[in-house]
Amino acid sequence: MLKLNHHLLKLESRYLFSEVEKRVLLFQEKNRDAPLSNLGIGDITKPLAPSIAKALSEASIEMGTFLGMKGYGPAEGYLFLREKIKEHEYQNLGITSDEIFISDGAQSDMAQFQELFSLNSPIAIQDPTYPVYLDSNVMAGRTRKKTKNGKYGAVLYLPCREENGFLPSIPKEDAGLIYLCFPNNPTGVSFDKKYLQRWVDYAKERKALLLIDGAYAAYVRQKDFPKSIYEIEGADEVAVEFRTFSKSAGFTGLRCSYMVIPKKLVIEDLGQKHSIHKLWKRRQDAKFNGVAYPIQKAAEACFSNEGKKEIQEQIDSYLEGAKQLREGLKKIGLSCYGGIDSPYVWCKTPDKMASWDFFDLLLNRYQIISVPGEGFGTEGKGFVRFSGFARFESIERAIKGLYAYHHQR
Amino acid sequence: MLKLNHHLLKLESRYLFSEVEKRVLLFQEKNRDAPLSNLGIGDITKPLAPSIAKALSEASIEMGTFLGMKGYGPAEGYLFLREKIKEHEYQNLGITSDEIFISDGAQSDMAQFQELFSLNSPIAIQDPTYPVYLDSNVMAGRTRKKTKNGKYGAVLYLPCREENGFLPSIPKEDAGLIYLCFPNNPTGVSFDKKYLQRWVDYAKERKALLLIDGAYAAYVRQKDFPKSIYEIEGADEVAVEFRTFSKSAGFTGLRCSYMVIPKKLVIEDLGQKHSIHKLWKRRQDAKFNGVAYPIQKAAEACFSNEGKKEIQEQIDSYLEGAKQLREGLKKIGLSCYGGIDSPYVWCKTPDKMASWDFFDLLLNRYQIISVPGEGFGTEGKGFVRFSGFARFESIERAIKGLYAYHHQR
Repeated sequence: MLKLNHHLLKLESRYLFSEVEKRVLLFQEKNRDAPLSNLGIGDITKPLAPSIAKALSEASIEMGTFLGMKGYGPAEGYLFLREKIKEHEYQNLGITSDEIFISDGAQSDMAQFQELFSLNSPIAIQDPTYPVYLDSNVMAGRTRKKTKNGKYGAVLYLPCREENGFLPSIPKEDAGLIYLCFPNNPTGVSFDKKYLQRWVDYAKERKALLLIDGAYAAYVRQKDFPKSIYEIEGADEVAVEFRTFSKSAGFTGLRCSYMVIPKKLVIEDLGQKHSIHKLWKRRQDAKFNGVAYPIQKAAEACFSNEGKKEIQEQIDSYLEGAKQLREGLKKIGLSCYGGIDSPYVWCKTPDKMASWDFFDLLLNRYQIISVPGEGFGTEGKGFVRFSGFARFESIERAIKGLYAYHHQR
Repeated sequence: MLKLNHHLLKLESRYLFSEVEKRVLLFQEKNRDAPLSNLGIGDITKPLAPSIAKALSEASIEMGTFLGMKGYGPAEGYLFLREKIKEHEYQNLGITSDEIFISDGAQSDMAQFQELFSLNSPIAIQDPTYPVYLDSNVMAGRTRKKTKNGKYGAVLYLPCREENGFLPSIPKEDAGLIYLCFPNNPTGVSFDKKYLQRWVDYAKERKALLLIDGAYAAYVRQKDFPKSIYEIEGADEVAVEFRTFSKSAGFTGLRCSYMVIPKKLVIEDLGQKHSIHKLWKRRQDAKFNGVAYPIQKAAEACFSNEGKKEIQEQIDSYLEGAKQLREGLKKIGLSCYGGIDSPYVWCKTPDKMASWDFFDLLLNRYQIISVPGEGFGTEGKGFVRFSGFARFESIERAIKGLYAYHHQR
């Protein structure tokens, strides 16, 4: 007889972004012609850069030829791409190309990596942060039920609040798997070297592992704010880094990501040292068949001179959107954060309004789509996230709407 | 402190196909110029069909335009593709397009689907069969350790032997998750309607779930041998089906697959009925971000008149390869099976030779790559698998080599 994985029932029945989508659809059904300002889901709005679309299309044609066709590729990705990543993203950081694993999305990587570890390894996560770290651990059974305060049992939450500048303090408690997203989604706040060094030291002392979500690394601008955890001394003994081409090169519809698992990373258990690199390789060989060849060729094109220039322009433009948003919100007196090293602006709701209420008000009265902060964790209550990926006309229209709202209050 | 998932240590340290690859590389290093006949890994050898490569390349160009660009797609796949699959693969079988989930590979789907169920749900698998079903359950902790006889504890093995025509008998014991691969990889043997009806009846009676790997469905030729489990009455209450474009349309290097989860499928647990379709949707929303748009467009092109004709020619040609192999092997007096409804030929080793020994002999003396049957389960001892995906010149050369071997014995 078949039995259910009861941990699944601990989850909210609907995923955050599905709930946002549902409410937007409902609004659209009633208001067919209203132009929406979509500052919600963090999806890119610019087409693939010309040199990347070209590489993708050329590799597609290649797949139709006897000489160029490719069958199964290596589960860990083609060396041509791993080499380019090493060279351009990890220069002088001591990372080798065989420490890089190519995959189909940071979301799936972050969700699946926990499989390597015991259910008794306690997890720590920022609050608020991107839902996948928590959701995947809930499903796996590493947490207890949600309590009345909206938090899951057996999870070490790291509160990111206005009071601490959204930098959670290093915990006194023990943790095994520590998920750190920087620049953090949704707060838009990134971490400097000194702060990250403290996490590396903590992980070394407690024999914990840092899982670094660097999905937005390409957006970091401030000096002394690292793009990679491996800029921190000793990080290659305690950290795995997750990166993606989604937000840096507009690949949300193409699906390509990578992880760095340094060979120095070992886990001591049952009186033996185990290489995390080897364990993940074995896992991938059994469960994954690699990323499409044309997509890896498109990812490779991101590192050509032309590709680099083109995607840099896209990133700059998204950051400009975030700046417009931040400044617009400040002008009307709303407190907001992020938007400097990140495409996201984290905005405090006026008059301590609940985040879903502010979301509904913005949607129904001003046709602005945001994401309720509560969806990212209980510390997100009283906040909404705005995305700088939006088209300029959306941002402009949204700011006008917010002005109108401001003057009516 | 971090602890390991100890179940990982129950696995063989090396994946079957990685071990084959290692031995081949070792041979090549010593014999640089020897032409190899690769009848090993079941990878396609023909380029993508012209109309499919065209669709792929056109969608790639589209991604570089403002009007055609696509960001995140639905986790469950685009409706245009789900509709086409329903229409062409499930006509008159009562399957609706929203019961179809698009994914990046049958391997990952089959590996991950078990996440929905309790670790106390006992599994049943054919022996021999494709390694992913067992490996993923070992890693999840649904089995006990491997015993001296090479089998894992807490697994119900369904022996596929010469004596039973490779059709395992319906067990007396209870099972929760039953993995059935037909046409089976590696034996190449498929199942008829009458036999499958008995499995459906068993699953209904025991409240078990059939997980059908239909990766090779497009190769089924014999009358009364169904391509889909849903040709069997009542299957939509007890079966999930996994399919892929890998072997039917040469997508091993492109990665696109799909699963059918009928909405009628419910699991009763904790006094409630749970929809498996809903649970999987929730899991995918949290952990997966869909398949690349251009790849879904390429998959769609498989159902155009032109695409259908082109891929049918490829399948016919691979089946012709299997036929040559089967007949060649029979001529020299080796017992072999499959190769009619499947690209694979399952060959008994001569003189009860161990399968890795026969593999090594074929490789080192005749430059033929096979896959040792033992890698697919203990019942595969004394067999090797040959693949009809090989190029014709490889098959010809291999048969000549086998003749030579035969006459030297």
